[in-house]
Amino acid sequence: MNDNMRHVTIRGCSIGGPDLMVMAGPCAIESREQIFATAEAVAASGGRFLRGGAFKVRTSPTAFQGLGWDGWQLLREAADAHGLLTVSEILEEEQIEKARQYIDLAQIGSRNMQNTPLLKAFGRSGMPVMLKRGFGCTIDEWLQAAEYILQEGNEDVLLCERGIRTFETATRFTLDVAAIPIARARLGVPVIVDPSHAAGRRDWVECLTLSGVAAGADGLLIETHPDPSEALSDGPQAVVLSEFPALIEKARRVAAAVGRSIPVAPAVSAAAS
Amino acid sequence: MNDNMRHVTIRGCSIGGPDLMVMAGPCAIESREQIFATAEAVAASGGRFLRGGAFKVRTSPTAFQGLGWDGWQLLREAADAHGLLTVSEILEEEQIEKARQYIDLAQIGSRNMQNTPLLKAFGRSGMPVMLKRGFGCTIDEWLQAAEYILQEGNEDVLLCERGIRTFETATRFTLDVAAIPIARARLGVPVIVDPSHAAGRRDWVECLTLSGVAAGADGLLIETHPDPSEALSDGPQAVVLSEFPALIEKARRVAAAVGRSIPVAPAVSAAAS
Amino acid sequence: MNDNMRHVTIRGCSIGGPDLMVMAGPCAIESREQIFATAEAVAASGGRFLRGGAFKVRTSPTAFQGLGWDGWQLLREAADAHGLLTVSEILEEEQIEKARQYIDLAQIGSRNMQNTPLLKAFGRSGMPVMLKRGFGCTIDEWLQAAEYILQEGNEDVLLCERGIRTFETATRFTLDVAAIPIARARLGVPVIVDPSHAAGRRDWVECLTLSGVAAGADGLLIETHPDPSEALSDGPQAVVLSEFPALIEKARRVAAAVGRSIPVAPAVSAAAS
Amino acid sequence: MNDNMRHVTIRGCSIGGPDLMVMAGPCAIESREQIFATAEAVAASGGRFLRGGAFKVRTSPTAFQGLGWDGWQLLREAADAHGLLTVSEILEEEQIEKARQYIDLAQIGSRNMQNTPLLKAFGRSGMPVMLKRGFGCTIDEWLQAAEYILQEGNEDVLLCERGIRTFETATRFTLDVAAIPIARARLGVPVIVDPSHAAGRRDWVECLTLSGVAAGADGLLIETHPDPSEALSDGPQAVVLSEFPALIEKARRVAAAVGRSIPVAPAVSAAAS
Repeated sequence: MNDNMRHVTIRGCSIGGPDLMVMAGPCAIESREQIFATAEAVAASGGRFLRGGAFKVRTSPTAFQGLGWDGWQLLREAADAHGLLTVSEILEEEQIEKARQYIDLAQIGSRNMQNTPLLKAFGRSGMPVMLKRGFGCTIDEWLQAAEYILQEGNEDVLLCERGIRTFETATRFTLDVAAIPIARARLGVPVIVDPSHAAGRRDWVECLTLSGVAAGADGLLIETHPDPSEALSDGPQAVVLSEFPALIEKARRVAAAVGRSIPVAPAVSAAAS
Repeated sequence: MNDNMRHVTIRGCSIGGPDLMVMAGPCAIESREQIFATAEAVAASGGRFLRGGAFKVRTSPTAFQGLGWDGWQLLREAADAHGLLTVSEILEEEQIEKARQYIDLAQIGSRNMQNTPLLKAFGRSGMPVMLKRGFGCTIDEWLQAAEYILQEGNEDVLLCERGIRTFETATRFTLDVAAIPIARARLGVPVIVDPSHAAGRRDWVECLTLSGVAAGADGLLIETHPDPSEALSDGPQAVVLSEFPALIEKARRVAAAVGRSIPVAPAVSAAAS
Repeated sequence: MNDNMRHVTIRGCSIGGPDLMVMAGPCAIESREQIFATAEAVAASGGRFLRGGAFKVRTSPTAFQGLGWDGWQLLREAADAHGLLTVSEILEEEQIEKARQYIDLAQIGSRNMQNTPLLKAFGRSGMPVMLKRGFGCTIDEWLQAAEYILQEGNEDVLLCERGIRTFETATRFTLDVAAIPIARARLGVPVIVDPSHAAGRRDWVECLTLSGVAAGADGLLIETHPDPSEALSDGPQAVVLSEFPALIEKARRVAAAVGRSIPVAPAVSAAAS
Repeated sequence: MNDNMRHVTIRGCSIGGPDLMVMAGPCAIESREQIFATAEAVAASGGRFLRGGAFKVRTSPTAFQGLGWDGWQLLREAADAHGLLTVSEILEEEQIEKARQYIDLAQIGSRNMQNTPLLKAFGRSGMPVMLKRGFGCTIDEWLQAAEYILQEGNEDVLLCERGIRTFETATRFTLDVAAIPIARARLGVPVIVDPSHAAGRRDWVECLTLSGVAAGADGLLIETHPDPSEALSDGPQAVVLSEFPALIEKARRVAAAVGRSIPVAPAVSAAAS
């Protein structure tokens, strides 16, 4: 670990220190049942953040676009019920202020990494933000995008490596594991790894999860769903909820091997309940 | 040419037919002298659109960010003085309405290709728009992004191929010439080629210009500057204004060879003055 | 054109000057009928080289591997009958000496671009050679590979751009048209363009052919087949022989537009018959 | 681990089971002192294979090309003195027979992955072989290349993932960690990871080593040098010999976390001395 690493603390939860943050949940929030079942499982495995999309940036305009504000309301309730924090993508500056009651950590998606008006708006807002790497962007461009936020005075910035576009098609993207220590060293902010979007198929999520932890990631962002075959978006890459605990247990062992830890008992959860 | 090609007509200027539209100008509008000198040269070579950025999306927050609304005012004046139309990148939905007095054709930049709220806003606005291909995006994703605009009822959509990111570093991006006929055939909308951003160095702009015309492009978007060594952004790829006429003359010959034309005398210019 | 361009002359046929060399034929030589029909059509369109593979480097070991020496005998006979020269890939040093009676221009395939023992062997042999760019290799690496041949004293070297591997899958490879003038300028040797392997589908061969000519290529290497639906390899990218004359006629017009020419009457053919 | 994994046994050393094989040494064998010092350190850290190149495939013909047969003689002596096996790249079919007295495991380099005559020659030879992935090749192409060897009846085949070419330049190549479990699952042969060529800079070798182990690699191929600043090739990516034990110790901990082991005491070494 880099001693100069800036720790980011969100509602008492510190990221960038010895503890790895587990963030998990569905690609899209679909129903109360789905998100509550997920929240329970995430908390039980030591996860600290419940993820779930309400306003989706889909490649095609005919794909499911999310539940919107109702979705965020469900995310908040499910997270609160299990002592979790929330993380979700915010697409537009207009949403930021109102979103803060629902979302503890805003995600800037890969497709918005160089949307500079949005970056600046997050910079001014002071809201904790996780900047995903653009899948066609270099590490340098990613760090420069983060500077747009930092320059406005918002230091609660996390990065998230989620795979880059290459000629290989066996996976949806190619996880650039070296980007994890490189980005940490150059910018001094925590880097989360998203193995789900890189893999694109759940078969390879475990491998990328463990690789990311071994490479020094400060947290995991994993898509999981109670029944991926019924998921309205990105089902093929979602880990089945029943297999999630085993995945996290493996990640925990690798984390320990590199001097980090994934807490078993979610302290915040206890405090919240 | 594809007989099912949808022609886009902007203030009497038809794109997608036999005439190739030449759009040229500096990366960023810097001064009255610069933009008027450019407008004069563009019009003299048969160009129809004056390009110039006023709100720049720069990779780094410390780079020159443009003159803003004052820049657009200069662009408008210079274009009007020489019977040209204007094209410029619009970054935010909030700018669209006010921008229409200055900008005849809005450009959605490569970094915003999948900014779906912006795509939808342009769809609703009805403003003529040119969608640049995301440098990390496939042709399929590009066409789906265009659908976000078309679906809202705005049919005045042009596409612009500007190079994709590959491992080759001799050029800044790799121009995907095959994308020109593929996108035309699949979506049935005109495709403009931007050789300047693909090349990244003026030495190779001519080659990419002629290749794009040979591949069937419906127009050219070329960066040119009176004195590139003094340019505040993207100087190395700007064609020197004094060499611009020769470049267009070469493009004109290739256009003729593939059954297209680049008009010599700018009819609109005459009408406008 | 670069005045310092080294012209390569093979049996009286000069490459690198104003005349573009058309090289065409099937991916694999399959039968006497096939190769003679092809030779006739290639000669009739002004082509100078008949191409055809006899020893194929196929990705899979179960794919058709070619007719071997019998194939080269057929290639020679068909070429001689129509006053053409021959070009074919040679895979191994051991084949070079014997191959020279059949092959006028040896091709080093994309997959062998960095096979240094083979490069050196061709250097020592003095046989005219066309070095295809490795699809995963930079322009710099390509030119350095050519140096392996030149350093041994063999100056009869042509380069061939045939597309690089990128994330785009609409075409099999992405033709790097800028590589044509860049390689010409840096190494001073003629550069041939192969639109067929780049396209991977005959629909886009025309576009890439014309783009390559516009970019300044010194020749064309095109796959054509009397009946591509029956081809034993690479059928989908082969131009139907009956459509070949129209393609070359279009290329001829673009060549003229950039100050080059594709001869209509094959002078060598007349001399040879 | 995949229960259907084919174990490859070389001189009593089994690859593909619970034990990870550590293979290490310099890019090029340069001197007796260099290779003996390396052998001692590799053996002391539990390594089983001493690597070192004698015939180098260098991108440029003017770069150091290796010591040739004298280099292999030194490699053999150094390995024997410390109970190690040897691994080195063989470039040509002609070398195979004579090389077997020096080399226990032949490496087919990334640039030769699709050199089918060489693949077939290795298939016929029965010599244990490690096939590196072509840096521009897909996983599918890599497995098909391996089939060329397997089809000839040689089942002693290992694969080696060493990074692919992408647009990112912070590392020399991008390690495709997902390729490790994918290739293992599809072909059922052991996969070694080469973090050195992927990283291109020693700073990132540790990260890629640990990621590869976490992803399930069956072995490590690491470049190490007593004094990288004096190395005749690839110095920047070589781990300093004095830091090698700490690197392997970290890898050992990650291996244990994923149910594998890196032996501390080299059994073969003891037996050999």
